Amino acid sequence: MKIGIVGANGYGGVELIRYLVNHPYVEIKLLASHSSNGNSIVEQYPHLQGILEMNISELNIEDVKENIDVLFFATPSGVSKELIPQYIEAGIKIIDLSGDLRLQDGSLYEGWYKNTPAPPFALDKAIYGLTELNRELIKEATLVANPGCYPTATLLGLIPALQHKLIDGNSIVIDGKSGISGAGRKTSATTHYSEINENVKAYKLGKHQHIPEIEQIVSQIGNENITVTFSTHLVPMTRGIMCTMYANLKEPINESKVISLYEDYYKDDYFVRIRKGGTWPATKEVTGSNFCDIGITVDERTNKLIIVAVIDNVVKGAAGQAIQNLNVMYGWDEKTGLQTTPLFP
Amino acid sequence: MKIGIVGANGYGGVELIRYLVNHPYVEIKLLASHSSNGNSIVEQYPHLQGILEMNISELNIEDVKENIDVLFFATPSGVSKELIPQYIEAGIKIIDLSGDLRLQDGSLYEGWYKNTPAPPFALDKAIYGLTELNRELIKEATLVANPGCYPTATLLGLIPALQHKLIDGNSIVIDGKSGISGAGRKTSATTHYSEINENVKAYKLGKHQHIPEIEQIVSQIGNENITVTFSTHLVPMTRGIMCTMYANLKEPINESKVISLYEDYYKDDYFVRIRKGGTWPATKEVTGSNFCDIGITVDERTNKLIIVAVIDNVVKGAAGQAIQNLNVMYGWDEKTGLQTTPLFP
Amino acid sequence: MKIGIVGANGYGGVELIRYLVNHPYVEIKLLASHSSNGNSIVEQYPHLQGILEMNISELNIEDVKENIDVLFFATPSGVSKELIPQYIEAGIKIIDLSGDLRLQDGSLYEGWYKNTPAPPFALDKAIYGLTELNRELIKEATLVANPGCYPTATLLGLIPALQHKLIDGNSIVIDGKSGISGAGRKTSATTHYSEINENVKAYKLGKHQHIPEIEQIVSQIGNENITVTFSTHLVPMTRGIMCTMYANLKEPINESKVISLYEDYYKDDYFVRIRKGGTWPATKEVTGSNFCDIGITVDERTNKLIIVAVIDNVVKGAAGQAIQNLNVMYGWDEKTGLQTTPLFP
Amino acid sequence: MKIGIVGANGYGGVELIRYLVNHPYVEIKLLASHSSNGNSIVEQYPHLQGILEMNISELNIEDVKENIDVLFFATPSGVSKELIPQYIEAGIKIIDLSGDLRLQDGSLYEGWYKNTPAPPFALDKAIYGLTELNRELIKEATLVANPGCYPTATLLGLIPALQHKLIDGNSIVIDGKSGISGAGRKTSATTHYSEINENVKAYKLGKHQHIPEIEQIVSQIGNENITVTFSTHLVPMTRGIMCTMYANLKEPINESKVISLYEDYYKDDYFVRIRKGGTWPATKEVTGSNFCDIGITVDERTNKLIIVAVIDNVVKGAAGQAIQNLNVMYGWDEKTGLQTTPLFP
Repeated sequence: MKIGIVGANGYGGVELIRYLVNHPYVEIKLLASHSSNGNSIVEQYPHLQGILEMNISELNIEDVKENIDVLFFATPSGVSKELIPQYIEAGIKIIDLSGDLRLQDGSLYEGWYKNTPAPPFALDKAIYGLTELNRELIKEATLVANPGCYPTATLLGLIPALQHKLIDGNSIVIDGKSGISGAGRKTSATTHYSEINENVKAYKLGKHQHIPEIEQIVSQIGNENITVTFSTHLVPMTRGIMCTMYANLKEPINESKVISLYEDYYKDDYFVRIRKGGTWPATKEVTGSNFCDIGITVDERTNKLIIVAVIDNVVKGAAGQAIQNLNVMYGWDEKTGLQTTPLFP
Repeated sequence: MKIGIVGANGYGGVELIRYLVNHPYVEIKLLASHSSNGNSIVEQYPHLQGILEMNISELNIEDVKENIDVLFFATPSGVSKELIPQYIEAGIKIIDLSGDLRLQDGSLYEGWYKNTPAPPFALDKAIYGLTELNRELIKEATLVANPGCYPTATLLGLIPALQHKLIDGNSIVIDGKSGISGAGRKTSATTHYSEINENVKAYKLGKHQHIPEIEQIVSQIGNENITVTFSTHLVPMTRGIMCTMYANLKEPINESKVISLYEDYYKDDYFVRIRKGGTWPATKEVTGSNFCDIGITVDERTNKLIIVAVIDNVVKGAAGQAIQNLNVMYGWDEKTGLQTTPLFP
Repeated sequence: MKIGIVGANGYGGVELIRYLVNHPYVEIKLLASHSSNGNSIVEQYPHLQGILEMNISELNIEDVKENIDVLFFATPSGVSKELIPQYIEAGIKIIDLSGDLRLQDGSLYEGWYKNTPAPPFALDKAIYGLTELNRELIKEATLVANPGCYPTATLLGLIPALQHKLIDGNSIVIDGKSGISGAGRKTSATTHYSEINENVKAYKLGKHQHIPEIEQIVSQIGNENITVTFSTHLVPMTRGIMCTMYANLKEPINESKVISLYEDYYKDDYFVRIRKGGTWPATKEVTGSNFCDIGITVDERTNKLIIVAVIDNVVKGAAGQAIQNLNVMYGWDEKTGLQTTPLFP
Repeated sequence: MKIGIVGANGYGGVELIRYLVNHPYVEIKLLASHSSNGNSIVEQYPHLQGILEMNISELNIEDVKENIDVLFFATPSGVSKELIPQYIEAGIKIIDLSGDLRLQDGSLYEGWYKNTPAPPFALDKAIYGLTELNRELIKEATLVANPGCYPTATLLGLIPALQHKLIDGNSIVIDGKSGISGAGRKTSATTHYSEINENVKAYKLGKHQHIPEIEQIVSQIGNENITVTFSTHLVPMTRGIMCTMYANLKEPINESKVISLYEDYYKDDYFVRIRKGGTWPATKEVTGSNFCDIGITVDERTNKLIIVAVIDNVVKGAAGQAIQNLNVMYGWDEKTGLQTTPLFP
């Protein structure tokens, strides 16, 4: 199966490469990027020397039609919504890692992303690619909107509690902590080593564009209009996201009972691992892997459920989940090419 | 004025030294430690070469009576409660950086610290040393219980909102993020570089011994029994604490109005700085200084007040505040010896 | 093929697990450790949940004889030399990751390791497992002494220059920089996060036990008795070693000529990559992979050859090279199970 | 005494501010910068809130003549050489932190900096501001060329050995390791957190512009033309430089004898500290301070002297030494305003 990567020279693109060069059923046929066409990917990423010595080229629809079955878009916000429609029409399967196709309601995109939305037919076609939630729909999909990094950790952490109606949806507070790779490779004051190192920094409190994406799914699961409190923090590490989530319990419930419900909910999901009671996941325990690890406690003093979910933002939060979705679309074992053990220490 | 430091070879002790060697009215006359008496502090801390080449000795009450006016205890939990009573009786002024004298209700200490509490007369005598809150009481104090690091950031962030009755006390959620120095110098698996680096780790969710300390003060301010949700996370940096706090607003209120109330509340407090609307503090902006920086937003969508407070846990969260209290006790300018500019970058 | 890991709960052991769980021809049948027998490896390493849920047991020669073909020793210095003799006699193939069998001259071991050496028959039998150097010998080996981390980077960097007699062996200066994982999992003051972070620390200058290991091989290649200057530094990162090497050129030579000689020397060695002139490797470009990347320059002003070699100390410097040797011993493709792309960023 | 800072919004400038706000004899009257004139320094550096709330303005010679006694230039290469001549003529005292006035031979500047040199009268006037070396000359200076960060550590490490003719100057190899703040605040791929973190990176081997600066002084001390081998590496930390230096001993000499010579050489230099035999300095032991710590060993096996020198590149390697020079110029105690204890941990 032949694939192409648009935005190949960003962190999402290069992580797709890391996994896909070892995927048994896939051949990388195209690395596309507007900014660096013509150069070898190795010039920008010397770690790929001897692994994938391929030139980056300008995206061209005729070439794609001829040579590519599936196109990954690992492009910044606002790019894929312009390009994708013609590729849909050309019958190319697409997995979009950007936020352009995740919000079914175009006006939400307009409000949060300050940009015109993708055309309605594209939004209609797009399946939200949280694999564990939408596996059945993804099997038939030709266009997948791969989830954001924060929403992936948040939703995998909240869905079982919402499904089992354990918590009051509108009481949810999500405190997100992210490594710096989430900000991409573009240089800026906020990614400068000297200022990020030895520093925790709050940003976009209550204003992050992942908020409507989370609300869309929790409202669907909770079967009501849910508004969440969501805040984000940069922590001094490269990879990893932790979301700590707080919600009021509808009824008092035993911690071990909640853990059992979660274990049961995810019993067929290889990439979701539930921690034993009294222990908590750490981001390093999933680094470089597609796992989402979840720890749970009940704070009896305040009648709150507290959930901690961790992922590697570049893997389960981006490239890994995209490949998981590719595997599902093609009927391959979901783990194909993705069984990297976390890099510890 | 002659001071002594008990627990001189821990991080709290060595930070007291950092400031006190430059304090114009203070002379360090004693470094005491059980574990390393007889050696020079420079052997354990070569950064003090040429600055304070002093031997560490065993604590001895007769020596103290003769030579010391004020004794700082920078000892682990459970030590100072045993030692302090005799020094109180001997008329020595004491500033205790540990948690042993912070909880007025001994049974709370017993429950959270799993240890017998200090004798009642000591608890009665101890003034809780959150300088900005208790400045008047500290002026007359002979025994100060210096606040914990998390409570310092949390309380400075919450007190104005509680004083102005803006928020529902029982809805408070505090998400704490701390650098590793908070765990002290003792080696353990949880301070091992290879496992802390590139890692965010949740710990003691809903079970941290700083919870009753926070509740004691917010209940007093809020004039009702308040229970808080409090969780803690280790982030890969040495110094710094950030507490992100969420609470339900009693009435809708404008963000800039809240900021004004905070600015006004702290207008005479040099070490508390309120950020402008739309900006957020970062821990590095207070590193190596005694400041507590606070950012505030109103999340109108969920009717929550969100407060972010940062301190250097070793300074305002320990040694710096202890010296601030010393200054208050002696009627000196509160900033004496403490005007270090944050180390940035 | 059935393997066992002795010292499974150290960083070398857990890295062997990371690779071997995905090795197509290998089955992990035994995790042994003296200190933690009886527990599941997952209790100590939660990142292995769902990947290898296996108990750690006490090493027992009868079990090994029955169930194991190859035994990896990832034990601290001084352990394998005591245990290995009986396993050799029992016909078990052994790959020893410790320093116990690397020095052919037992008296050198005695001098540098301050311990009695392994018995002569074991030292005679042991093949030094620098795969690129000794591939032919390893094919027939039943006992492999896997190289140290610093020697691996150093020797791969120096051997071509010595083979081509470009440099004066006795002028060699090696400046080594290592991440902290090289110090193992044992807690100590020198691995404490708060003191390692934001710190570069020199240690064991001219006294590191890897010196005789390096000298043994460079003397053999250079065909004369060579003494090297070797110093080591801890840098604040978890994985990675860089060795910067300086040597006097015997004759002036063009940089591009040297690079060609290196490229040619390693043309059949997948895991050694030579950088283009004017560019230098960085440790992150090999993190999590078995590559050794080498950059070369000629400093014409001082007539010196400068070589920079980087490896991941836990992979090519330990577990990865051990598996590479296993592959060679069994006639499998050397890359089997080892083709992980470096984790970048 | 009234001072101004040109390039106030770079790291050198902001570090000058950190110290000068607490300097008893100095008043900051001007913050100048081309790129951000008109804004408050606090907008770019919130850590200065309440400490120095001053606007940044465009540099204007008439204002300077009227209001300023001493002007610090903390500007990028190539700026001060254009601006300084007119300020010299106007009788303003100048301390230049850039490399523009360090090389007495203009043609060397041209070759290494690829730029036209400063006018000869300025180069003639400029005193090289390595305080410990040129203290007497600095007392009379009106123009000081403050040393580079690498040269400061290197020269303080080498000078006593050269003075005592212990080593062969042309055998010197200097292996430099620097934190990232040395690259300044400008954003670039080489300062991106995600790529610097967990990474050691070699750069500019044998080509760094600090080479002629080092050679100028060691040749002067050694009284012969000396060429040095000098290489540089970025290590993942914000502040700190370590230079490890290797040189052939002319005659065998005892380690403790060398240490005594060094102690004696620096006995009146408060900011240079010599470590005891068998111990080595670490960069963190000088962080945030103006110290240069030096460790020494004799490698008897190879007859080499090995010297390790560490500084905080932003303090002793830039702003701190500049203020030390100011103190010397004005006859104040050299330590005035500079007695910050290193920030440890």
